[in-house]
Formats: sequence, structure tokens, C-alpha cells
Amino acid sequence: MKAIHGGVTAPIGFRANGLFCGIKKSKRRDLALIVSERPCHAAGVFTTNKVQASCVVINKEHLRDHRAQAIIANSGNANCMTGRGGFENSRAMAAVISRALKIRKKDVLVASTGVIGKPLPIKKIIAAAPELVRGLSRKGSELAAAGILTTDRVNKEAALEFMIGKRRVRIGAIAKGAGMIHPQMATMLCFASTDAAITPAALRDALARAAGKTFNTITIDGDMSTNDMALVLASGMAQNKRIVEGTKDFRIFSRALETVFLTLAKQMIRDAEGATKFVEVCVRHAQTKEDALAVARSIACSSLFKCALFGSDPNWGRIAAAAGYADAHMDPRRMQIYLGRELVLRRGGRVKKKAVILNRIFAQKNIRITVDLGLGKYAATAYTCDFSTNYVRINSAYRT
Amino acid sequence: MKAIHGGVTAPIGFRANGLFCGIKKSKRRDLALIVSERPCHAAGVFTTNKVQASCVVINKEHLRDHRAQAIIANSGNANCMTGRGGFENSRAMAAVISRALKIRKKDVLVASTGVIGKPLPIKKIIAAAPELVRGLSRKGSELAAAGILTTDRVNKEAALEFMIGKRRVRIGAIAKGAGMIHPQMATMLCFASTDAAITPAALRDALARAAGKTFNTITIDGDMSTNDMALVLASGMAQNKRIVEGTKDFRIFSRALETVFLTLAKQMIRDAEGATKFVEVCVRHAQTKEDALAVARSIACSSLFKCALFGSDPNWGRIAAAAGYADAHMDPRRMQIYLGRELVLRRGGRVKKKAVILNRIFAQKNIRITVDLGLGKYAATAYTCDFSTNYVRINSAYRT
Repeated sequence: MKAIHGGVTAPIGFRANGLFCGIKKSKRRDLALIVSERPCHAAGVFTTNKVQASCVVINKEHLRDHRAQAIIANSGNANCMTGRGGFENSRAMAAVISRALKIRKKDVLVASTGVIGKPLPIKKIIAAAPELVRGLSRKGSELAAAGILTTDRVNKEAALEFMIGKRRVRIGAIAKGAGMIHPQMATMLCFASTDAAITPAALRDALARAAGKTFNTITIDGDMSTNDMALVLASGMAQNKRIVEGTKDFRIFSRALETVFLTLAKQMIRDAEGATKFVEVCVRHAQTKEDALAVARSIACSSLFKCALFGSDPNWGRIAAAAGYADAHMDPRRMQIYLGRELVLRRGGRVKKKAVILNRIFAQKNIRITVDLGLGKYAATAYTCDFSTNYVRINSAYRT
Repeated sequence: MKAIHGGVTAPIGFRANGLFCGIKKSKRRDLALIVSERPCHAAGVFTTNKVQASCVVINKEHLRDHRAQAIIANSGNANCMTGRGGFENSRAMAAVISRALKIRKKDVLVASTGVIGKPLPIKKIIAAAPELVRGLSRKGSELAAAGILTTDRVNKEAALEFMIGKRRVRIGAIAKGAGMIHPQMATMLCFASTDAAITPAALRDALARAAGKTFNTITIDGDMSTNDMALVLASGMAQNKRIVEGTKDFRIFSRALETVFLTLAKQMIRDAEGATKFVEVCVRHAQTKEDALAVARSIACSSLFKCALFGSDPNWGRIAAAAGYADAHMDPRRMQIYLGRELVLRRGGRVKKKAVILNRIFAQKNIRITVDLGLGKYAATAYTCDFSTNYVRINSAYRT
């Protein structure tokens, strides 16, 4: 398994493009298109928010046949809570690409990200469609990755090459993150491609597993988006023996997809709104897998812990408090807490450490917190960032 | 029912005091004592965090006989996650007051608030105890209220006088808030007194109801404390006919206690760390009471919504998103959202309003958000504040 260049266009048969069509005031790219040469097996996971953008609803409809060939996405406007007109606009996005590429409307997936509740300027998107299609290229991943960003500072791309039997196979993806990140069962925006031949059922299963272990373990601000989705298209052009569930090939493919997603998930945390730190919260020896993840997420979500990270203040009492209010079995008398490699809490009491040592750990850019519950054999890791004055600044004037 | 002065010492038979014993670097008051002339019926509600400070554990023990006569509390140190030594220190706090007042140890309740995980400087508390007792006074509520503050800027006191039959009865209380405020079933620190004669069972019931409708509906930062508690002592010295459950007198007493608590809960929000705004989130027409509160709390907790409040940006899409991820029945097509009195969302689509009107509402110091779920007949209100750069600043350097 080796990392390669090319992002979502690394697998055979995929082209992409991204451009500025007039939605973003900043005049940055705000429209992206990913297209496969052939119809693909396709799968998606979506936000579990009960308020869902029209693109989420429409994609579920379009994926009923587990098939797709193109993804069009705009940034700068979420097209959510925009009434019936919003649905018509999402359908119009799919329609214009369907006509330009001469493919079925149902084979076009749609995504939007940005401000909620504002009408989508659909005419700008329709006007830009011919140029968007004309510019499709085998090297277009970077442009597409730029076209889906909102408050992100950098592009998020990843690609891997690995063997299925004797065939070289590739997975590539682009994503965006930055804010309103607290995925549950689904994720932010992530568009993945692969040239692997794989059954629709195996693709769905691999996607759900990989998203659960990666995107669902990150949190930036505890707010779950209305537009989250991860989509994957499999062209089959690598001509490997078709991957089916429960085989060694399936495990190889799943692990590769998970690796690509984890790379993107970590990129999202590093580029989180206002973030200055990258933090891993590892929970060990929980009674169940769910407990391990619940405790890790509870700590990763704590505003107070995240403020302490920003201030480089090794205030581990806040870690203990957040572990204590997680919905999980725990016994404070068995819990141990490590900051980096330093044990600071053992059996309900602190282990005295020199302040200078703990301060040095919290002053680093990459921080690992380990919480050992001392109860069972399950572990989980959650990823988060610090909570900075800049996060508040960015989000106090998001629309202006 | 009328508001009176005197806080926790307003009811007959209660004296209080507060002083600086040497815990806080700021040299502000950090020790408080409340004493009743006679043994009282007593009740408490406590944090549901699984990590609990030793004072929480010990108070539950001391309240087994539903009786207490004094409350000693320190600020500047939570005495939590401090091991066996921490428990001994909490017991020592009760013991020194028991000796000085010649009352049973079990009749002394203990509370601590401040940094988690640091050993409590118990010698300073013991040394200050004689002076603390000497200074007890009928006018001491203000000093005690100051002695329990941490990052609070102002004292929190309230008292009411009302009639039970032909007897004048009083309830008084002090509280502290400011941060790590997200009560579940219990609350922050609140010490209440009453001269009403009331059965222990009625007192417990009234306390649980009142806390549920007041302290449990506020959130400052979504972090639940390890030291939360609300205690109430009833001296019976008003000589009213003893209040029992299920009577008109019980309803009058419960409503009065709820009014005192709501006054304090609102004071907490107004004085929240870094807060510049006071926000009521009213949810109407929910299918169940629990749903109404879940949606109200979800919105009140949203970091993004709270940042928008700070920036006076009427970004109601974040309200819709937070309602959508609450654990409650909801249908976005039936939801309506009002900012102040302005309807901005109806049947899944926005109602166009002039930006200047919405901006003016969000620029106010007091803001009311109403979310109508259009499903049933239940309502609930949650109280919150904005999320400011100052909140982050305060909590990035809490210990330094």
C-alpha cells in the first residue's frame, strides 16, 4: 500500500475540474465536478441530522440503484432550509451536468456546502456548467478540491495504490472540513473514487466501516452539519477480480479506504477553524467499543478542555470531568490519565509532576491524551483541535 | 409572593459569613459558612457526572437522615480527583465546623469549587474556622455569596416572602456559576434556606422539581461539573402548619422555591464567563416535554449559534441545524423559527426579512429565539449566553 499523487483523479477513468462561478464573495473557486468515464457502482453515507439539505435527500434517491457517474458540488451556499425552490435547484444542478455529459440524471450526485437558508444562485451554476465540463482533466483533482472548500485554508486530497490479486488498484479522494464538524454515522463532504472492481454491497459495507472509524471519530465544534456526506464511485477499470464481502481482498480494500479517509480526517482537524493544535484522545481498556468511543468523543468535545489546549494549560481535571459525563461505564477510582507519556492521574488522585514538564507537553503542536478506564479490553481514538479566540472570531462573522 | 433582601439569611434562624482564608491568589473571599439556629430538615440534588468530588459523596452520606444545620463551602479549589487525602480533607472541613458550633458532624454539609486535581490547603481552612464562626451574622448572606464565587463577577442572591396559611414564610438562597455549567438533574452550587415548616419528603420533592425547571435548563459551555449541588435547609421557625406533599401549601412553596432558583439561574447566565448576551430559547408545540427540552438545550449548546450571537449575526440556519441534531421528534417541514417576533423560517423555507431588522434583534443584549415544532402541545425554555473570544481567553489560562 503506497501513497500516490492525483487525489480523486488518481484512479483510472476519473477526471475532475473546479472553478469560480460567482457564489463566493472572495472570488475563490466555488464549483467542482468529478466524472467517471463509465457508470460506476456507487455508495454514500449521509448526515443523521433531521434537518437535511436537498442534496442529501436527492442523492439518497439517486443512489437507490447503487450507480452513479458524476458528482457536482458547490461551496459558499448549503442550499438547506430553502424550501421547495431549494429542491428544484439541486435537481437543476444534476440536470445541467446530465445534459452536458449525456448521462442519466440519476447518475449525477449533488452536494452543496456553505451558509444555510439562503437561496442558491442556480443561474450562475448553470451558466458555468459548459466551462466546468470543458475543463475536466485527469489532473483536475486539485481544482475540484479547491472548489468545495469553505473556511478551509488548504486543499484536502489523498490517494493510495495497492494490489488486489495481481492487479494494481487505486483509491483517491478529496474532502472539506473546517467547521460544523461533529459527524454522526456520516461525515462532512468527502468524494472518493476507485478503479477497483467491487460489488455494490461490498462497496457500501467498506464505506460505512471506513467512515465509522475515521470521519465519525473527529470533532471540531460539536455541531453536526445538515449537508454531510461521503460518496464513493468505483469504475472497475483496474480489471481486478471483483471484490466481494468477507474475502481477503475485501479486507485489503477496506483497509485502504480507511487509510485514505483517516488521512483526510486528520487534514480536516489540522485545518480546523482557528485551530493551532492537533490532538489525539486515546481511550483504552473500556468495557465496550461504544464506551471507548463515547469517552473519547466526550473529551474531544469539551469546550473547557479545548480552551485549555489553546492556552497550553495542562488542566487535566477537565479531561476527568468530561470523561465523567460521557454516556459510558466508568469508575473514577480505576481511571488513569496520561498527558503525552506522563501519568498525571492514578486511582482517583493526582500523580505529582513538575509543572514545567506538563506545560511543555501542552505547548506542543501535536498532543496525545490517553485515558485508561481500567475496566475492559476495548479502545478508541478521537481526533480534535483546540478552541481558539480565532474560532469565535471566524464564526461570529461567518456571513458578513 | 414578594422579593425581599437578605439572600440566604432572609429566613428566620439563619446566619452566614464569608472571608478570605488564603486559597485564592486574587485574595478575594474563598470561604463561606451558613448556619441555622436549629437542626433543619435538609435535601440536596447533585451532579450526575460519574467523576464526583469528595464533598458530593460526603453530603449524600450526611443527608441520609434528611437533617442538617450548617453548610461550609470553599472556592478556588474543587477538591476533586485528589484521592483519599481529598476525602479526608472534606471530612476535616465538616469536623472543624462541628466542633466550633458544637453540632453533630453529620449535620454539616460541605462544598468545594474551583480547580480540579489540586490538593486542598485544608490547614488554611481549619485556621480560619474560628474567625468564620465568630463573624456569623443575620446580615452575612452577602459575605457568604462572595465566598463561593470563582470566575463570577457578581454575587448571586435571591429571597422571597410569601404566605403559608396565615403565616409569613421566607425562602432565601445564594449561588455561583460562571463556567463548566451544563447541569443534568442537578446544578452548580446553590445553597437555599427557608423558615417554612415542611416534611423532609416534601422538601426533597420541591427541590427536585424546582431544580429541574430552572438550573437544569441553563447551559453556559456544555461542560458538566464534578462538584454541582443545590442544598436546601428548612428551619421550621416560621411556625406555619407543616407543609406536606400534594397540598395547596406545597404548590405555593414549590412555586416560590422555583422562583428563587430561576432568579439565580438567570443571574448565572448574565454573569457567564465572557458573556455579552442573555438568550432565551423557547421551544413550542413539541410532541413531548422531553423533546421540547432536548431541542431547546441542543440549540442553547451550539457553539456555532453562540458565536453568531457574539457577532450579532442573525444566522438562523445554525438554529435549524442544532434543532435537527437534537434527540427529539421533529419534522423540518413543520418547524417555524422566530428571532424575537420575526418569523424567519416557515415550512422548511425562509421568510424573507430585511437584514437590518434581523441584525437589530441580534444586536440586543436580551434575545428571545422561538422554535415552533408544530407537532404537539409541549413547551420548554432553555437559557444561554453567547460564546465570546473572552470566554476562550478566560478558560485558556484558568489556572495561571
